[in-house]
This record gives sequence, C-alpha cells and structure tokens, in this order.
Amino acid sequence: MKYPCGAKKTYSNHSIHANRGMTLENDIGQSNDYYLVNNIAVIYKKPTPITIAKVDYPPGTNGIIREGYFKTPSTTDYNGIYKGKYIDFEAKETKHKTSFPLSNIHPHQIKHLKKIEEHGGISFIIVRFSLLNETYLLTTPQLISFLEHNKRQSIPIAYFKENGYILKDKYNPRVDYIKIINQLYF
Amino acid sequence: MKYPCGAKKTYSNHSIHANRGMTLENDIGQSNDYYLVNNIAVIYKKPTPITIAKVDYPPGTNGIIREGYFKTPSTTDYNGIYKGKYIDFEAKETKHKTSFPLSNIHPHQIKHLKKIEEHGGISFIIVRFSLLNETYLLTTPQLISFLEHNKRQSIPIAYFKENGYILKDKYNPRVDYIKIINQLYF
Repeated sequence: MKYPCGAKKTYSNHSIHANRGMTLENDIGQSNDYYLVNNIAVIYKKPTPITIAKVDYPPGTNGIIREGYFKTPSTTDYNGIYKGKYIDFEAKETKHKTSFPLSNIHPHQIKHLKKIEEHGGISFIIVRFSLLNETYLLTTPQLISFLEHNKRQSIPIAYFKENGYILKDKYNPRVDYIKIINQLYF
Repeated sequence: MKYPCGAKKTYSNHSIHANRGMTLENDIGQSNDYYLVNNIAVIYKKPTPITIAKVDYPPGTNGIIREGYFKTPSTTDYNGIYKGKYIDFEAKETKHKTSFPLSNIHPHQIKHLKKIEEHGGISFIIVRFSLLNETYLLTTPQLISFLEHNKRQSIPIAYFKENGYILKDKYNPRVDYIKIINQLYF
C-alpha cells in the first residue's frame, strides 16, 4: 500500500501499517532537500495521484475533499534534474531478506523507466532491504537485463550486490544516490 | 483555484467555475499523449498535491479519502524529458485581454523555474489568453528579464508578442510547444 503524501498519522491502526515503509521515503526526501539547498540537484517526489470524487466548499476554504481514491501511478515517484540531465527513479522498501519481489513495481513503471532510457535520461530504482538495513541503486539497464534473462518474479539480493551499487547510510545526505550517479554518468 | 486532477464533474455549480480553466490543460494533456505515443518526448502533468487528513478503509478497497486539502504546489505542473534534456514548465490561462497577472504564478514557482535554468534545464511558461484564443510560450530567461526590469504586477500581451512565441492551434498535437523548444535549443 502506498503511503499518501502529507498524510497525518491520526487514522488509527492503519497508520501503523502505512508507516512501515516510510523510512526510505523520509531518507530520500531529506537527501533531496540537501541537494536542493546545496544547489547540487533539483529532485522532487511527485504527489500521490488521487481521483477526487466529491469536494465541499465551506466558506473561507478552497475546498475540502470528502471523497477521494488512490490511483495507480503511471510514472515513477521521483524525477528532476542533475547537471542538465533528466533524472527519474522509483524507490521501494522490502521486508524480504533474500530477494526483491518484482510485484513491488508496476509494469507501467518499468515501461516508463525504459522510455526514459530511450530518450537519453538517467533512470534507476532504489531498493532497501529494511530488515537488513541495506540499500541498493540499480540502473534501469541493469534492471532490464535481469528481466530479459530471468523468469523469476523477484530479484535476488545477490544480483543487487553484483550489479547494483550500495548506498551506505550517511548523516547528510542520508541516501547519497547523486554521488553514485555522478560516478556512473559524469 | 486549481482544478483537481481527475475530478468528476458532479459537484454541482462549483464544477462550472472549476471547468473554466480546463481547456489549456486538456490541450497540453493531449499534446503530451501525442509526444509519448510518437516517442518524441516524455512529459507528464504532476498530480495535484493534497494533504490527506482522514482515510477510511472499507473492506475490499485500498482506502477512501474522507478529508483532504489542496496544497500550494512547490514546483510547476509539468516536467519530463526531451532529447535527454530536462523540461519543466507551468501553464496558465487568463481571461484578461491585455495582460497576464503575475498573481497567477506563485513566487516559489518562479524560484523553481530559475533553479531549473541554473541547473541547465529548459523551462518556460505557457500562457493562454482564453478570450482572445491566443497562446504563448515565454522562456524563463525572458520571464526573469521582465521581472527584473519592471515593477508591474502583470505582463502585457505585447511583451509576449515581442519576446515569446505563439503556439498556434493545431489539430494534433493541439499545443505543439516541443516544436518551439526544438527550434530554440536543438
């Protein structure tokens, strides 16, 4: 389940479930803030796509949504610019210890990542194995190569170790993926 | 007022008001679809940012938002990639006939456009004078130049005619802004 952006943590036991996947998102958000403030890159998380069905307009407000539904995103969660180049990626956490289930990424997100590559952009996924506290960056060409050569429904952690790049925990920025991108592409 | 993305048109007289500004958004959406399908560019409108305050979880759903608020966007509405370069823009309609009120663009959106220029991206605004049915593309450097040399709170249409680029109505794509960008930057 996706955690809706900006959601308050007041909606009872569901928030506990929803919060499980927050850490990587928080770490990437902190890193993006760091890149922005230090003029390194301009990268934002896209808002959660929502279908709005009903809005009330009490006086003095610009509308209160009273019925809305979470939509399946058609693209990835993050995009922006680094050194003039277009950057695009998806970030996921898993509680699995030995592999990353591909069901975590929608097929149209993979299609989107492929398109970005075709158009000369830089794209990748960031996957955190939260119980191991290990975070990897895997470029889209490496992801596609796996999909083309495997029938498996999950990517073994060994594949990340061999073909991806580890993102070590840091204080600031917490997930320094731009450092890896800089080494790989610039 | 911003029209929430994907909103159904059922919420009575408010939809009439909200619909007024839909045409340019629809035209750009159609153009982005055209660019995507024809493998010219990958450009999407970002979802409307919403703060979610309350979600119900009836069985068989992945959550129904019961209380949500429209947030002020921190960036522009559109971004993506064209020929490897990062593209970023805001699109606005005005019913004014002689000038475009700058109050239509948030100060942090202008700051964002400036940042994109600093990082080597291509950014601009698209403004439609809906009662004249005239649509212009103004690059961020041209926008900044106006802001630096004028105390006015609106950009006269003459400035668009002299420094911007007219986007003529077409059948497909309806607003061919990539054609202008291609001429200017490639």
